[in-house]
Amino acid sequence: MTTTATAGSVGLVTAQTLHFDEPLALACGRSLDSYDIVYETYGELNADRSNAVLICHALSGHHHAAGRYRTDDRKPGWWEECIGPGKPIDTRRFFVVSLNNIGGCHGSTGPASINPGTGQPWGPDFPDLRVRDWVHSQARLADRLGIDCWAAVIGGSLGGMQAMRWALLYPDRLRHCVVIAAALRLSAQNLAFNEIARHAIEADPDFDNGHYLRNGKVPVRGLSLARMIGHITYLSDDAMADKFGRELRSGSLEQGATEAAEFQVQSYLRYQGSQFSESFDANTYILMTRALDYFDLAREYGDDPVAALENSRCRFLVVSFSTDWRFSPARSREIVDALIAARRDVTYVNIDASEGHDAFLMPIPRYLDVFSAYMQRVEADR
Amino acid sequence: MTTTATAGSVGLVTAQTLHFDEPLALACGRSLDSYDIVYETYGELNADRSNAVLICHALSGHHHAAGRYRTDDRKPGWWEECIGPGKPIDTRRFFVVSLNNIGGCHGSTGPASINPGTGQPWGPDFPDLRVRDWVHSQARLADRLGIDCWAAVIGGSLGGMQAMRWALLYPDRLRHCVVIAAALRLSAQNLAFNEIARHAIEADPDFDNGHYLRNGKVPVRGLSLARMIGHITYLSDDAMADKFGRELRSGSLEQGATEAAEFQVQSYLRYQGSQFSESFDANTYILMTRALDYFDLAREYGDDPVAALENSRCRFLVVSFSTDWRFSPARSREIVDALIAARRDVTYVNIDASEGHDAFLMPIPRYLDVFSAYMQRVEADR
Repeated sequence: MTTTATAGSVGLVTAQTLHFDEPLALACGRSLDSYDIVYETYGELNADRSNAVLICHALSGHHHAAGRYRTDDRKPGWWEECIGPGKPIDTRRFFVVSLNNIGGCHGSTGPASINPGTGQPWGPDFPDLRVRDWVHSQARLADRLGIDCWAAVIGGSLGGMQAMRWALLYPDRLRHCVVIAAALRLSAQNLAFNEIARHAIEADPDFDNGHYLRNGKVPVRGLSLARMIGHITYLSDDAMADKFGRELRSGSLEQGATEAAEFQVQSYLRYQGSQFSESFDANTYILMTRALDYFDLAREYGDDPVAALENSRCRFLVVSFSTDWRFSPARSREIVDALIAARRDVTYVNIDASEGHDAFLMPIPRYLDVFSAYMQRVEADR
Repeated sequence: MTTTATAGSVGLVTAQTLHFDEPLALACGRSLDSYDIVYETYGELNADRSNAVLICHALSGHHHAAGRYRTDDRKPGWWEECIGPGKPIDTRRFFVVSLNNIGGCHGSTGPASINPGTGQPWGPDFPDLRVRDWVHSQARLADRLGIDCWAAVIGGSLGGMQAMRWALLYPDRLRHCVVIAAALRLSAQNLAFNEIARHAIEADPDFDNGHYLRNGKVPVRGLSLARMIGHITYLSDDAMADKFGRELRSGSLEQGATEAAEFQVQSYLRYQGSQFSESFDANTYILMTRALDYFDLAREYGDDPVAALENSRCRFLVVSFSTDWRFSPARSREIVDALIAARRDVTYVNIDASEGHDAFLMPIPRYLDVFSAYMQRVEADR
């Protein structure tokens, strides 16, 4: 069962871009006349085009999920632990498609792109997006790649929400749906954290009501704070205790020490926030968190998740992690209970892991084993 | 047992101020040459001065714990539910002393006070304080009020930490120690939330490195954000769900709705943040959160809570609340376990409550009953 011993990397990869000219009608009522989607693929599409899997990314994710652009890249793609030869999403068996969603800031058309109507960056005038808009745009990407039906649509966190929406909007275009560390919708506490993150960005004078790019500014402080807030919710209390405890980075706790002591967790968070603020677009962060806030799988089905999921035809794998408090195991069980009530085929596993929400990115042996086993079933179901 | 049926208010109260001229040596190595302490008292000190209880306040608290200044005050003191005739801290039996700690911003000397050395507000030059500094200043207040030994020192959250420190620093000056929703020290996650709150304040351009008062500014945005962040940690996920769920304040979730929908929790948090930023001093907020961060009851006792608590001589009541995730029941059990190992007399109760950390301020019947019963024992022990 354990496949991780032989696991390798997809190696060097190249991002590709497709341009779409047919207007995309959006949930907000507006439409996007034309747009680019940046994506990567790993592995080979088989002759009957039955081995394609789609990776949907989370809040701050992008298309670069595996491999490296150059051999000396410091870090591989964000899901290197799960995608590659011998890994759960085995690129010797599957043709893996990973994209940057529209509204993103890693090459696909988003708020930092030029609005053809004005010649200026879209900024806050970029249309509000919902998870369903991403799914529709991903379906067009599938059309262009000649993929009628995905062997699986797979995502963690916000990515898992896209996978579930796929199952309802295009029930005949996926055979399996893999929903990791997700939820049917956000709780009030989830909403509150996102609200504070957005508020931090909007309160930064350099945000300029979203027109910072036009004005040659970047709301570094606000975006950094937003990331710090998010980061706490990705880690469990235990994970933080293991990682930092109350260790000091500098100074002393002795009474009367002249140098101010600084806890490691403080410098870690500041570093994380600062790094993120240099590489991510503030309007995209606002757009993505709002898409999260407004996601509600069952809303248009009379708020009944069972009625919603009765529209699906695929099989499901649902995974949660014991110390995840952003989308706790209880939230995954709501999905599983609804799937069972809707008489759908669902495999559920709650993985003991100390890493909190971030566990879905981590090489936790039981997680990788379960994920690998399920993907072998996906392959057998082709 | 239930005393709440007959519970009343202490009615109209007046704050008093005492000036202290003897320099107070602080843990940071500096000293405060002179300072004011603002306080209130409720009930009457008895002839043998044996019925005095001290209330220690939490992060954003102050001396006004019960009653009203005028009959038309919109709100009573912050612990009105627990202090008054027939309430757990029964003012027919106890002489209650409630103060604003030094470093505060409600009348006691703090960062917003004038530094006699410069004629300007202290601002960021106000000395860093530790919980022990508050305890020493409270002991001097006791001296001035003629109280040799408190019947009980009582506090919730950061107030409970002061009560525990009292038990170690002045073991002969309290007979009971009531520690509600507290912890032996902060976890890495606790530290992280405080760090982000401070960072939000410091990142506000109007903070001016702490010299905002001198420059006629107030870091409203940063302080508001800090409060919003704190507020999430005071409420449980359940409490937020009960209070707001995903209810909308305005707009519609329908696709294509022209008016932006706003979740109630968002406007609530913005309101809370905004109100707080108008009434609280940013430097005090930083000072108080740092005192919390550095509190570590056992640090100077070889990091052994048992060795630390062996220095106490009083009896203890420890209270936690089931959904408190800021200082969870597990953190209270650490205190209780150490007290038992130190062979101290401890009563512990974990109250089922949906309100999270804020529960310690709420009129939860079992909480009030247990608290009342314990305080009757305190009275009997006089």
